[in-house]
Amino acid sequence: MSAFDVAALARAARAAQPAVAALDGTARGALIRAMARCIRDAQASILAANAEDLARAQAAGQGAALRDRLRLDPARIEAIARALEEIAAQPEVLGQVTRRETRPNGLVVERVRIPLGLVAMIYEARPNVTAEAAALCLKAGNAVLLRGGSEARASNAALAHCLHAALREAGLPDAAVGVITDPAREHVLALLRLEELVDLAIPRGGEGLIRFVAEHARVPVIKHYKGVCHLYVDAGADLDSALALLIDGKTSRPAVCNAIETLLVHAAIAPAFLPRAIAALRARGVEVRGCEHTRGYDAGIRPAGEDDYAAEFLDLILAVRVVDDLDAALAHIARYGSDHTEVIVTRDEAAAARFVAGTRSAAVMVNASSRFNDGGELGLGAEIGISTTRLHAYGPMGAEALTIERYVVRGSGQVRHPR
Amino acid sequence: MSAFDVAALARAARAAQPAVAALDGTARGALIRAMARCIRDAQASILAANAEDLARAQAAGQGAALRDRLRLDPARIEAIARALEEIAAQPEVLGQVTRRETRPNGLVVERVRIPLGLVAMIYEARPNVTAEAAALCLKAGNAVLLRGGSEARASNAALAHCLHAALREAGLPDAAVGVITDPAREHVLALLRLEELVDLAIPRGGEGLIRFVAEHARVPVIKHYKGVCHLYVDAGADLDSALALLIDGKTSRPAVCNAIETLLVHAAIAPAFLPRAIAALRARGVEVRGCEHTRGYDAGIRPAGEDDYAAEFLDLILAVRVVDDLDAALAHIARYGSDHTEVIVTRDEAAAARFVAGTRSAAVMVNASSRFNDGGELGLGAEIGISTTRLHAYGPMGAEALTIERYVVRGSGQVRHPR
Repeated sequence: MSAFDVAALARAARAAQPAVAALDGTARGALIRAMARCIRDAQASILAANAEDLARAQAAGQGAALRDRLRLDPARIEAIARALEEIAAQPEVLGQVTRRETRPNGLVVERVRIPLGLVAMIYEARPNVTAEAAALCLKAGNAVLLRGGSEARASNAALAHCLHAALREAGLPDAAVGVITDPAREHVLALLRLEELVDLAIPRGGEGLIRFVAEHARVPVIKHYKGVCHLYVDAGADLDSALALLIDGKTSRPAVCNAIETLLVHAAIAPAFLPRAIAALRARGVEVRGCEHTRGYDAGIRPAGEDDYAAEFLDLILAVRVVDDLDAALAHIARYGSDHTEVIVTRDEAAAARFVAGTRSAAVMVNASSRFNDGGELGLGAEIGISTTRLHAYGPMGAEALTIERYVVRGSGQVRHPR
Repeated sequence: MSAFDVAALARAARAAQPAVAALDGTARGALIRAMARCIRDAQASILAANAEDLARAQAAGQGAALRDRLRLDPARIEAIARALEEIAAQPEVLGQVTRRETRPNGLVVERVRIPLGLVAMIYEARPNVTAEAAALCLKAGNAVLLRGGSEARASNAALAHCLHAALREAGLPDAAVGVITDPAREHVLALLRLEELVDLAIPRGGEGLIRFVAEHARVPVIKHYKGVCHLYVDAGADLDSALALLIDGKTSRPAVCNAIETLLVHAAIAPAFLPRAIAALRARGVEVRGCEHTRGYDAGIRPAGEDDYAAEFLDLILAVRVVDDLDAALAHIARYGSDHTEVIVTRDEAAAARFVAGTRSAAVMVNASSRFNDGGELGLGAEIGISTTRLHAYGPMGAEALTIERYVVRGSGQVRHPR
């Protein structure tokens, strides 16, 4: 597969896109449900392909974390099929009129949602992204180019086989879901330079992959590097609630981007809260790294340095800092945060409002877990990613984030300079 | 001014931005009105600075077109002041709740408009951009970095003096409107790589400048290269209306991006329409370049080649082509268009609907002039530019396009994995 082939794949996808957009919402839903059906029916061949990928990963000495991301089983395949059905069932976004105004000269100005066009997904081990990203792109009338990780190539090919079968059944060309099967990085490079063809690239995976994409892209990129999410316990917070939100945020799934990485505690509540929190964290196997004040409660706590406050641990490790007040918490977040998710636990509405206004992250939670920053939990259905790029979409991206609003103007012969 | 200085300017702007966003809408409006007032009061010194720029341009042998874009006079200064007042009077965009939903678990999920952050404007000769871009950015709570053309440096400095005076009066640091005064291109390069500081770069000017920015940017860019706008006259169109829309689109201001560059005519109406159109165009000094069919009406018409159909003439030149039907018109637009503005003149609603659905341009006009694709005309107030980038904003960009929606979630202690 040469750079030329990648361009040919992109041209074919772009040529197929209007046919996707021309389907009505019902037909696009049926297409995505047919993909789900085919994936369920093909369970045996998908698992066989996945076993191949897993064996290769094992032989290559890949770690357990990667192999877990790579692994499919009947439950995970069923989860993929269900995610597709949920995407199919989401309300239609195309053709939505988001604004309508009649101008003084009688022009009727509408803003109408249309597809972005061609979306390129560049991702790593998880094979579910192949099906879910394709379904979300199609839902919003787009064509898509998929470039999954080489470690998942057999699984991705087996899933793509189902996607293509459903496309053909609906009378659409395979090219609407283009799959780059050759793992060489030069194809990613070629893809990232197809300014005239690719409307958006979304990288998903480790920070290395995302930096590579950002570094080399000429096409627009929406990304997030990492989630350094903070939980701030305000003076006068409900201690039980603060503890529950901390434990949920840190331990319910430590390896995901919306997990809590740093706990900030108002000095006034630290003596009541921190000893309980430290004990509860330790009971769940969490390593605490703290500021001097924090270490005053437990000499066994390792000191937290600059690196710890900037870290996305993705593990059972938590940085802790006692702050003088809410302003100090905001200053800490401004310095170390990653614009992903911040939480305040408070009973003081004015403090909540100051925290919301004083942070610029994609999601801010008042008395709710950081783990809710997720497309499904926030009501978008599935998500294609979480953006911390402050452009186009900020936070979880569903089908609507894969559209753009254009102007449709209807008149009766109006000219700008009547003569 | 070294690359380091540009980074320092960007850091200072970014540090000043929260103070801009913290002003309420009334205070931000007052700030922008104060800028307008100061510009009116400083008319004499702005004109003196402009005379300096004009003399330098003349001495450097710059053409009349550039000198016209550069020139200020009392009427143009008054127009700048009025544009600022209009921006100040536009409805507030910050804090707008665009969606609110209560989830089954009781979480209240809102999407709320916040500023983008720091916007970099990179533009050429027109000094009015200095004031208008700054005002639009501030209106939406952003800080801005301005890098105008070196040919306008004295005029831009005189205008920036007024902007800074108004900022100081409002208790804000000058840095909220950063001005890059050194003309060296290396500063633009440095600016375009400040990924951690600059949220959006908007280039405005000739295609060369825009390609330079797109080529070198690591920061997100919204742009449009050119406007190859089409007017399609459908079979059965009202001939008077078609002629009026053609003349307005081509001749009311030929050098702007929303002017018509190519006329497409349904073969069935060509014999009735084209002879009239050719005569009317010629009477207004428009050079017609046509397909063979078109040249059949007038042997003096020069043949139109591929280059003519792809051209943004920005001049009194028009490419003309007779097409077999609406589908052929859509195919022509798909091949040669620039996603800017397309017009259909028709009395057939089904044809209008097919034209709207079959084009992907930022603005599509049914029986209205292409010249209405403009922020003011479409109801946005002022515009910072017209985007043909299919991301974030598509078409004219007003204050709203300089914001992003974030998630604000309010709960009562909800966790994702209750235990």
